[in-house]
Amino acid sequence: MPVLYHHPMSSASRFVRLILAEYGFQVELMEERPWEKRKEFLSLNPAGTLPVYVDNSMRTLSGAGVISEFMDETHGALKRDRRLLAEDPFQRAEIRRLMEWFLHKLESDVTRPLVRERVYKLQMRPDEGGGAPDSKVLRTSRANIRQHMKYLTWLAGSRPWLAGSRISYADLAAASAVSILDYMGEIDWAEAPVAKEWYQRLKSRPSFRPLLTERVRGLTPVSHYADLDF
Amino acid sequence: MPVLYHHPMSSASRFVRLILAEYGFQVELMEERPWEKRKEFLSLNPAGTLPVYVDNSMRTLSGAGVISEFMDETHGALKRDRRLLAEDPFQRAEIRRLMEWFLHKLESDVTRPLVRERVYKLQMRPDEGGGAPDSKVLRTSRANIRQHMKYLTWLAGSRPWLAGSRISYADLAAASAVSILDYMGEIDWAEAPVAKEWYQRLKSRPSFRPLLTERVRGLTPVSHYADLDF
Repeated sequence: MPVLYHHPMSSASRFVRLILAEYGFQVELMEERPWEKRKEFLSLNPAGTLPVYVDNSMRTLSGAGVISEFMDETHGALKRDRRLLAEDPFQRAEIRRLMEWFLHKLESDVTRPLVRERVYKLQMRPDEGGGAPDSKVLRTSRANIRQHMKYLTWLAGSRPWLAGSRISYADLAAASAVSILDYMGEIDWAEAPVAKEWYQRLKSRPSFRPLLTERVRGLTPVSHYADLDF
Repeated sequence: MPVLYHHPMSSASRFVRLILAEYGFQVELMEERPWEKRKEFLSLNPAGTLPVYVDNSMRTLSGAGVISEFMDETHGALKRDRRLLAEDPFQRAEIRRLMEWFLHKLESDVTRPLVRERVYKLQMRPDEGGGAPDSKVLRTSRANIRQHMKYLTWLAGSRPWLAGSRISYADLAAASAVSILDYMGEIDWAEAPVAKEWYQRLKSRPSFRPLLTERVRGLTPVSHYADLDF
């Protein structure tokens, strides 16, 4: 069975897990702590980033962008209206723009610093950078969430799904990041009803279920985390 | 004519300019200073990143990944052995992995901090973050170059082109970043003869010529910058 190296608090990992689940793939999940920089892991992916997919012939695909494009080329292209990338090149460009937005921009503005301060640092040794969260980083990242939720609200309010009329990689990328922020109780849903309605639709999909039952050590999720009707 | 918003010291911009030149496209270049966060520019690309391509129908493509995939789908796919992405999904994955490496990892480890400290800060107003370079940032980034040059050497030494037997987006992405570092005199070529031979081949291509004649205000390039035989 193929193996996916992932971390439960990595948006890019969740994104690829959702794609695999939507397309009905079984994989063995291996949790990787990227800050440990394990030699065996770096030999699979010298960039040290998650996720990494290793197929049955031990061929390696590294990173959410690479894996998602590969999955589209080898499987998505045959799925017709269940394809998670569009057929039209401009629509594909819009989906990819939003993937970048949620997996790179939201990631560096919000998700990565918050996860590092609130989750990774609990598990890191002091010489790896572990310790108490840096309140200044928390404050900056939280200030950024509000802008991102506004943009998500605008997208969710102006189109049936984030990139157009069909569910796509853009929705899965956004929901991956949102689910991590929601786990940590960082999202004020009362302020974002339109985004909430969109996220409810995502959360209710069978592909999402494994993400909602997963727990990370040292951090209990917010009480409504796994509720489909929150 | 389509317009490309770019900056001469942005690897992602150079990468897209090389693709357009290799495929024989004419575009109007508009220099954009991303740190100014111009409203009109942000309305084209809310992420504020370069490059941005605007076609004759005013349709916008934002970011090197999005533009390069679009160019492959609409033009590259018809180019046969002059195509800059492979046909095989695993080879495509390897090309994309290396694009990520040079446009994201090398960028955040080396190119972005060095360009910011040595070029952008000269042109920024004090309230935009302008001023003298931060010597600590320079030191860290320069220490990272050595590791990256080793990896480039390994790639260039083990394959005819970085991702395999044919020139690809991987070479253009790497050469874009390398050309910016070389402009600033940050690369010790005596230490990297194999990478040098690869870069010479890239530099000699007609698509490269416009990059070699361009100058940025306040910073004269290293003397060998435009020499094909350096």
